[in-house]
Amino acid sequence: MGGENGKSGLRLWRNARLATMAKGAAGLGVVEKGVIAARDGLIVHAGPEEDLPVALRQGGEAIDCEGRWITPGLIDCHTHLVYAGNRANEFEMRLAGATYEEVARAGGGIVSSVKSLRAAGEDELVAQTLPRLDALIAEGVTTVEVKSGYGLDADNEMKSLRAARRLATERPVTVRTTCLAAHALPPEARGDKDAFIDLVADTILPGVAAEKLADAVDGFCEGIAFSPEQISRVFDKAKALGLPVKLHADQMSNLHGAALAARYGALSADHLEYTDDEGAAAMAKAGTVATILPGAYYFIRETKKPPVDLFRRHGVKMAVATDSNPGTSPLTSLLLTMNMAATLFGMTVDECLAGVTREAARALGLLDKTGTLEAGKSADLAIWDIERPAELVYRMGFNPLHARIWRGQ
Amino acid sequence: MGGENGKSGLRLWRNARLATMAKGAAGLGVVEKGVIAARDGLIVHAGPEEDLPVALRQGGEAIDCEGRWITPGLIDCHTHLVYAGNRANEFEMRLAGATYEEVARAGGGIVSSVKSLRAAGEDELVAQTLPRLDALIAEGVTTVEVKSGYGLDADNEMKSLRAARRLATERPVTVRTTCLAAHALPPEARGDKDAFIDLVADTILPGVAAEKLADAVDGFCEGIAFSPEQISRVFDKAKALGLPVKLHADQMSNLHGAALAARYGALSADHLEYTDDEGAAAMAKAGTVATILPGAYYFIRETKKPPVDLFRRHGVKMAVATDSNPGTSPLTSLLLTMNMAATLFGMTVDECLAGVTREAARALGLLDKTGTLEAGKSADLAIWDIERPAELVYRMGFNPLHARIWRGQ
Ligand SMILES: [Zn+2]
Ligand SMILES: [Zn+2]
Repeated sequence: MGGENGKSGLRLWRNARLATMAKGAAGLGVVEKGVIAARDGLIVHAGPEEDLPVALRQGGEAIDCEGRWITPGLIDCHTHLVYAGNRANEFEMRLAGATYEEVARAGGGIVSSVKSLRAAGEDELVAQTLPRLDALIAEGVTTVEVKSGYGLDADNEMKSLRAARRLATERPVTVRTTCLAAHALPPEARGDKDAFIDLVADTILPGVAAEKLADAVDGFCEGIAFSPEQISRVFDKAKALGLPVKLHADQMSNLHGAALAARYGALSADHLEYTDDEGAAAMAKAGTVATILPGAYYFIRETKKPPVDLFRRHGVKMAVATDSNPGTSPLTSLLLTMNMAATLFGMTVDECLAGVTREAARALGLLDKTGTLEAGKSADLAIWDIERPAELVYRMGFNPLHARIWRGQ
Repeated sequence: MGGENGKSGLRLWRNARLATMAKGAAGLGVVEKGVIAARDGLIVHAGPEEDLPVALRQGGEAIDCEGRWITPGLIDCHTHLVYAGNRANEFEMRLAGATYEEVARAGGGIVSSVKSLRAAGEDELVAQTLPRLDALIAEGVTTVEVKSGYGLDADNEMKSLRAARRLATERPVTVRTTCLAAHALPPEARGDKDAFIDLVADTILPGVAAEKLADAVDGFCEGIAFSPEQISRVFDKAKALGLPVKLHADQMSNLHGAALAARYGALSADHLEYTDDEGAAAMAKAGTVATILPGAYYFIRETKKPPVDLFRRHGVKMAVATDSNPGTSPLTSLLLTMNMAATLFGMTVDECLAGVTREAARALGLLDKTGTLEAGKSADLAIWDIERPAELVYRMGFNPLHARIWRGQ
């Protein structure tokens, strides 16, 4: 790296097998004898060696990939990565037979994450989050979405989002931030959800927008969280502030969150275990991505699966993400997440790989910048010691990453 | 390391929290302000700082653990780690809708692993296995069991076991080998199971024993594999050769494999999804360990869980292992395996941790040598960046190992 062919120079990854994931290509968009050329952090060629333009054949720094596979850098498009402490104690209590009530009485549940996050300074939050981010990066992740949602007041939501933004200065990774102030009701709201939604819409979101701390706005539409009407208030404000929206929808019951998200042209609706035909149809029409989160399904022992077949039939694009969070998905492996999507939900290898690359980029509104190996996009690559892409989905607890490239480096 | 306090010198791990897992201690055998002292690769003290003998307080190499947790080095007591190739293609075919018949016609199933293993030389087998072993070691594994069972003739079973033995010369890890010739019927047997069992008992086992290639003998008792009578023939020969036995029992149906194993005083019976009360009682009486293998349960989408409650009621000891193999459990994380045992089967944190330390050692007949932090045992330690042991079970796809010590180094 560096030298005369440094950051702004030409770099070539030769003798590689590519899963370009390019739009329009069949399946994974496989190129058996492929090359990727990048300059100034952008891909200038991704395709067969024989198609490499003459101008790119000389000079530049050539890396021999020795037949290894290259995929787009992985994208984790749904995480709650910034939090303090963890909830291993609750997990232990529940396994030992404690009821949810007993866990709650012992200070457990989301309120414990809110308490820990509010007590932590921004530096401490960043420090606690970095090992989790490093775990994702070690498996080839080049873009990660991070939500707030444990602050639940203006200062602490903004602190969370600032910590999330700082991750991108601490590590070579693209971070997209999402304000999820409408995640849960904080203790001081004393049960008044409407008043809290006022606070979100009138104070938190405008504050976050003024400091440009969020790239999108999210909410949790569920009986235990907020109603479709309350979410609509949040989304109306997001739209007014020019921020795209996403939604935790239909995870534990069908409140028609998928259709609500579609109505607002949401980038994605996420979870979706209880989404019905109408919801899927609305998502397809709106171009809203279905983000499949098998980690939470597995961890909370849910039995109703998201309607993957319905999404296929309607042509809804599916992303796959970790939902990394301390309460329902303490998961920091996107490879394992793919295995769960395949094993638990029957998603195919091609769907899983698209779900953590192209469709994850789409779910973040970044498809023009990353998520496939195509000229013009960021040179975000994952290079793998595997014989076939299916190995990335098939194995459990094994990391065959050979190298990770972010913006050409 | 090395120097005047090198291999044969005194080493102390101070300022640590210990989960000793010692027999008789409650739960994890926690010592809050603990120290471990080792000399010549053996623990000479493991307990409270204040109990450290005066003779051990001076000299020696002291390592400040800064309050980190130390557990016994982890033990994976059931693996098929030595194999060639993988079966990602079958996984992909099945997800794409292929039937088992179509997979078989395409050359899939265990026969494909037999074919690949027979085609590979011993060096190649070792080379292909090392990355899997390294994945286990990276999570604190200090002892691993490795079975043959893809050779299915004398030469190839012995080649597999030699490759397994060689792992211990390539890496700082204790390897226990198990001859699982009675794993499946090879193609050349043309359906004659009895004749193949003759080959196992009359040729393969004596050959393996003559070269001291195996520490134990295993079999697969199942409708698709071998009958209790056939397994009995194998076990009789193992006994005659002075080798302890283990059994793949009651995984897909109840052939009373657990009771059969107990009758032979087996070290362990493994899988056990269909084991009944009688089988559990027999195991308790014989001191046969129940090895719980959640990876295979998860991967093949089994729905019948092993009767963990029954084992508790009868006082059967439970080990937990990866069952790492290419067909039904391509899993190389013992941490993830613990999470599965807890999440899928409701095993407690204490049971999971005992299952990969003390009880795993018991299942290998090694409890006098490793598996707990007690004076006289091998100084096999895992040092963790965690606040509480439950984190080792709670997280998914995260490795908090700080350091691994094998035989004091
Ligand atoms: Zn979420
Ligand atoms: Zn097995």
